[in-house]
Amino acid sequence: MNTQLQPQSIIEPAIVTEQDMADAIRALAMDGVQKANSGHPGMPMGMADVATVLFNRFIKIDPSHPDWPDRDRFVLSAGHGSMLQYALHYLIGYEDMTVEELQRFRQLGARTAGHPEHGHALGIETTTGPLGQGIATAVGMALAERVSNARYGDGLVDHHTYVIAGDGCLQEGISHEAIDLAGHLKLSRLIVFWDNNSISIDGPTSLSTSMNQLARFQAAGFDVQEIDGHDFDAIGRAISRARVSNKPSLISCRTIIGKGAPNLQGSEKTHGAPLGEAEVAAARHVLKWRAAPFEVPEAILERWSDAAARGAAERAKWLNRVASAPEGAAFVRTIGREIDTSLFDELAEFRRTHQAKATKVATRKASEMVLGIINAATDLTIGGSADLTHSNLTLTAGMEPIKPGSYAGRYIHYGIREHAMAAAMNGLALHGGFIPYGGTFLAFSDYARGAIRLSALMGQQVIYVMTHDSIGLGEDGPTHQPIEHLAMLRATPNLNVYRPCDIVETAECWEQALKDRNRPSLIVLSRQNLPMCRPANSEENRSARGAYILRATSQPSPITLLATGSEVEIACVAADMLSAAHGIGARVVSMPCWELFEQQPSEYREAVLGTAPRIGIEAAARLGWDRYLGDGGIFIGMEGFGASAPAAALYDHFGITPGAVVEAALRLAA
Amino acid sequence: MNTQLQPQSIIEPAIVTEQDMADAIRALAMDGVQKANSGHPGMPMGMADVATVLFNRFIKIDPSHPDWPDRDRFVLSAGHGSMLQYALHYLIGYEDMTVEELQRFRQLGARTAGHPEHGHALGIETTTGPLGQGIATAVGMALAERVSNARYGDGLVDHHTYVIAGDGCLQEGISHEAIDLAGHLKLSRLIVFWDNNSISIDGPTSLSTSMNQLARFQAAGFDVQEIDGHDFDAIGRAISRARVSNKPSLISCRTIIGKGAPNLQGSEKTHGAPLGEAEVAAARHVLKWRAAPFEVPEAILERWSDAAARGAAERAKWLNRVASAPEGAAFVRTIGREIDTSLFDELAEFRRTHQAKATKVATRKASEMVLGIINAATDLTIGGSADLTHSNLTLTAGMEPIKPGSYAGRYIHYGIREHAMAAAMNGLALHGGFIPYGGTFLAFSDYARGAIRLSALMGQQVIYVMTHDSIGLGEDGPTHQPIEHLAMLRATPNLNVYRPCDIVETAECWEQALKDRNRPSLIVLSRQNLPMCRPANSEENRSARGAYILRATSQPSPITLLATGSEVEIACVAADMLSAAHGIGARVVSMPCWELFEQQPSEYREAVLGTAPRIGIEAAARLGWDRYLGDGGIFIGMEGFGASAPAAALYDHFGITPGAVVEAALRLAA
Repeated sequence: MNTQLQPQSIIEPAIVTEQDMADAIRALAMDGVQKANSGHPGMPMGMADVATVLFNRFIKIDPSHPDWPDRDRFVLSAGHGSMLQYALHYLIGYEDMTVEELQRFRQLGARTAGHPEHGHALGIETTTGPLGQGIATAVGMALAERVSNARYGDGLVDHHTYVIAGDGCLQEGISHEAIDLAGHLKLSRLIVFWDNNSISIDGPTSLSTSMNQLARFQAAGFDVQEIDGHDFDAIGRAISRARVSNKPSLISCRTIIGKGAPNLQGSEKTHGAPLGEAEVAAARHVLKWRAAPFEVPEAILERWSDAAARGAAERAKWLNRVASAPEGAAFVRTIGREIDTSLFDELAEFRRTHQAKATKVATRKASEMVLGIINAATDLTIGGSADLTHSNLTLTAGMEPIKPGSYAGRYIHYGIREHAMAAAMNGLALHGGFIPYGGTFLAFSDYARGAIRLSALMGQQVIYVMTHDSIGLGEDGPTHQPIEHLAMLRATPNLNVYRPCDIVETAECWEQALKDRNRPSLIVLSRQNLPMCRPANSEENRSARGAYILRATSQPSPITLLATGSEVEIACVAADMLSAAHGIGARVVSMPCWELFEQQPSEYREAVLGTAPRIGIEAAARLGWDRYLGDGGIFIGMEGFGASAPAAALYDHFGITPGAVVEAALRLAA
Repeated sequence: MNTQLQPQSIIEPAIVTEQDMADAIRALAMDGVQKANSGHPGMPMGMADVATVLFNRFIKIDPSHPDWPDRDRFVLSAGHGSMLQYALHYLIGYEDMTVEELQRFRQLGARTAGHPEHGHALGIETTTGPLGQGIATAVGMALAERVSNARYGDGLVDHHTYVIAGDGCLQEGISHEAIDLAGHLKLSRLIVFWDNNSISIDGPTSLSTSMNQLARFQAAGFDVQEIDGHDFDAIGRAISRARVSNKPSLISCRTIIGKGAPNLQGSEKTHGAPLGEAEVAAARHVLKWRAAPFEVPEAILERWSDAAARGAAERAKWLNRVASAPEGAAFVRTIGREIDTSLFDELAEFRRTHQAKATKVATRKASEMVLGIINAATDLTIGGSADLTHSNLTLTAGMEPIKPGSYAGRYIHYGIREHAMAAAMNGLALHGGFIPYGGTFLAFSDYARGAIRLSALMGQQVIYVMTHDSIGLGEDGPTHQPIEHLAMLRATPNLNVYRPCDIVETAECWEQALKDRNRPSLIVLSRQNLPMCRPANSEENRSARGAYILRATSQPSPITLLATGSEVEIACVAADMLSAAHGIGARVVSMPCWELFEQQPSEYREAVLGTAPRIGIEAAARLGWDRYLGDGGIFIGMEGFGASAPAAALYDHFGITPGAVVEAALRLAA
């Protein structure tokens, strides 16, 4: 038989198959990567069939209302396969995903960034690319769904979170933390497709792993299935089963990377480079795809639009339910993250009270006291800790833990899993309806770096509670004593790092973090007790300016002391000593948040820093401080790693003392 | 029966049981923590029985020669249980671990730091505390053993690596990466004891995990066993079996945390706080332990010394084998990490050649060329990449990969596991006989932070090859573009961060990294081509001074341009433009390694930086640069995250161009 096939453009929609729909993804992926001369065609071509069945038969989204709260969430954890998502978005009709955008793949300003970027195009639920982040973020989304469901019921909240993960995602450590948490909490609405193509960048996965992934996921409490990822019916049956399982699901999809490219499929060569003009042409021949580059036959587009219509119909039904539900109005407020302003009055009263009482507590304890007020005032906050609850002091009165299969609580025992905690908090924030906060020791921000960075890149309101913030933690020693961490976090764009010096500043920093809706905040807190430093109550949130004159002097001071957190006390004592013993009036500037200070008008900044010689005091690395020290300024802090000893002994040993400050001041004032 | 028990001090050694030996650990652990009023008694008391059987019957160490190369390695991954290790060291007779040291637990300057610190006391094979690091580091040690064994044979290299890991270690993501790698490579000499006590800090582990750990380790290729961790015979049988398995082993030891403390055992209350005087007394009663605090009956000490004698005898036999083995001398050189100095002549010749040819390549490519020379000259180097071999360019001609069960190669496909790669490199370095290097993208140093920090804290010669070092990587976009990473790494104490600008500096940086035997080095390399910048060959390694005047001017320059890596080219072009169009001679300073520059005499530093106004240029965050900019200096770099586009478009978009430098220079020179 050598009959001429009909030109695709005149195929009737009725006879368009899911194979045709999938091949449209393949063609667009090849074309996009080829035109950009950059990108990853192998994964979209390999997973086109799975994605087609998911989006065509199951997924509940309405592309014309991409933020519909009860939509299913789709996470492309294998973010390098971004053309899969862009092609899907074009086919299913997201209005911003035009042919022109596909043609501008990976170009400056395009919605079609190299990896899917949340906020760059409609319907991108989270930014992916760093492997394993997607699956761990999805765990947070799936958890958010269950907690919201427990509050608002099936009528308002009833959706799934679908993830496509690659071998890389499953090799990364974060995947272990994430699936352990998901399996434990029985997050049955989480369905993970593993693109099981046996290929990673270096070559066959057998170069580096012998893991039995099915057994591993089963050990974590997942329902597991394995299918031929190119068998449309098998894909459909697997998804149907996963949707009714009472566990989270892994569907291992045996696929051929680059499927459709006759000479390269099944090889790592399709992973991260264009196929080349010749191979693209050969693939079009094999796929019997005769449309021009970036062109999809109308009949196929029509079939795809049916999938979108299914979602739109679901949304219409949901709108009716919201309108009639007693919880409808509360739900809408929650999604808008509305906080009653009376909370801020309560926090102001809290500051007033403790300033008057000169309350001396560790700032981690102050944070717990503030959280008690916040958590009582709003149920938007959802707390947790990476197994340091009684050290981070993140659990306040009346908060019940979230348990396997039981989601009425609002406190998460994240386990010893800092990275998954941070990623899950991203997922909770991205899902909507929550302001997540979670605690660990500041030193172990190291373990969560990958996800903290994504909080910042995506501008999500996630609040990190990082206690035990310096050598002040004492005996646990240098592995637990942060040195470089403040620099690392301050260097991260779009992240506010707060280091309050006392109970008043702690309340101010929390207040600011709650108000900062499009940015993560990281609140750094002491283990040890700190005195109240604020000399008088101020109704204004002084920490909101980032830095301010804590103690002025009546005449121009010959010296300015800059400090943060627990070292503000040292600066104040040194100022007292300078005044009493040497008649030198020193200005003390507290700098709880450098990022906010940098946003102040230059007149304010100059007025605060003044023109006198400066001494910076922080029990951490110097890097970054020179910005404020000015030429000839002196830094008193850490020059290397810490040590194991009681806190007071360490401050003495490392010379971070009022005496050292006085000595430096006398040198500068001389 | 109410007979009076004999005072322990007159027990005959012959009737001392392993129970007595283990109770000595329990007593010392209680005493040490109680006296320090800080620490973790629960784990040492829970694992005392397992540790006793391991050290009494099996472990091959000679406490009087703690660095004996063929000793077994013991890693306390659950490092908070440090008193277990200190007690063991005292009992088995490490000369530095005296009663006085036990009494000084967690005090300033003591060998008995809060967590075991490599280098603080003899026989501490690695620093632990950050959970999961120990088990992953041990994978590197076990791999080092097999690779050395393949080279030098059973007579010289034939030992085990034993790990005690807790629930925290196994929850951390790094454990997944580590066991996947170990299982894949069939590292049968690795034996992991899991202190399976069902307790973590927040309470029962059932708060946060439902993982079937045995099934999980089995899925990774481990032999798994479960035993009663208080049954001495069962412990012995399990270790015997594990030692002959052809797979790495997990022995799940069901234990009672704090065993022996009658009112607190089995509770998280024993984890991280002293038991209190009353409970210590009660425990002594239950254990029938009548010796004074910190005192161990002589008979029990004698039994412990038998274990040490067993190791000493093994060492004597080994010495004989070394003396008679033809490979003995080579083995000793390897352990001393001796590099033939002719390598450095070759590298000097390489620099000379490429300076003359003005070779223009990406510095990652230059690094590959340099590595070709290094790897040919010495077999101390053992390379690898986290699945980015052909991007990091870490595999040189003739290097064979290490494969499961076959260890003759010297290249490791670490898989998509940056954290385990870094920790395994620590293990390779700590084991001795290797200079490990491994690659990933600089942005993904985030994923390896926890282990990079330990490289620095332990002062191990581990070389990180971090390519794709800026927005210059282009289309992959902001998730892959490092911004804050240079600051994060530069802020880390005892880590040299190199960012060479061309092929000559790349060779210099590698040379310096090879010579720096007590410090990790991190070499940051470009994806994109960079021209040769060095105007004339210099026999001296100029990068070894950290920063130097790359281009001087004949008269005092009104402006100094400071730059690193790919931005040195921009500085040079800007200098040309300033000279040609404006008659301004600008000095160009290349700063490949800030840490080395800081170590130069102040006269050198001042001479290099000069007194003219300065412009710093680096496609990264500003944080840290103010140290060199001086008051009024200008920084040209990144102010936020990157974007997805071709590299040249990004440099334009973010204004990191010669034109921008010229404009800034004109402002400063005005």
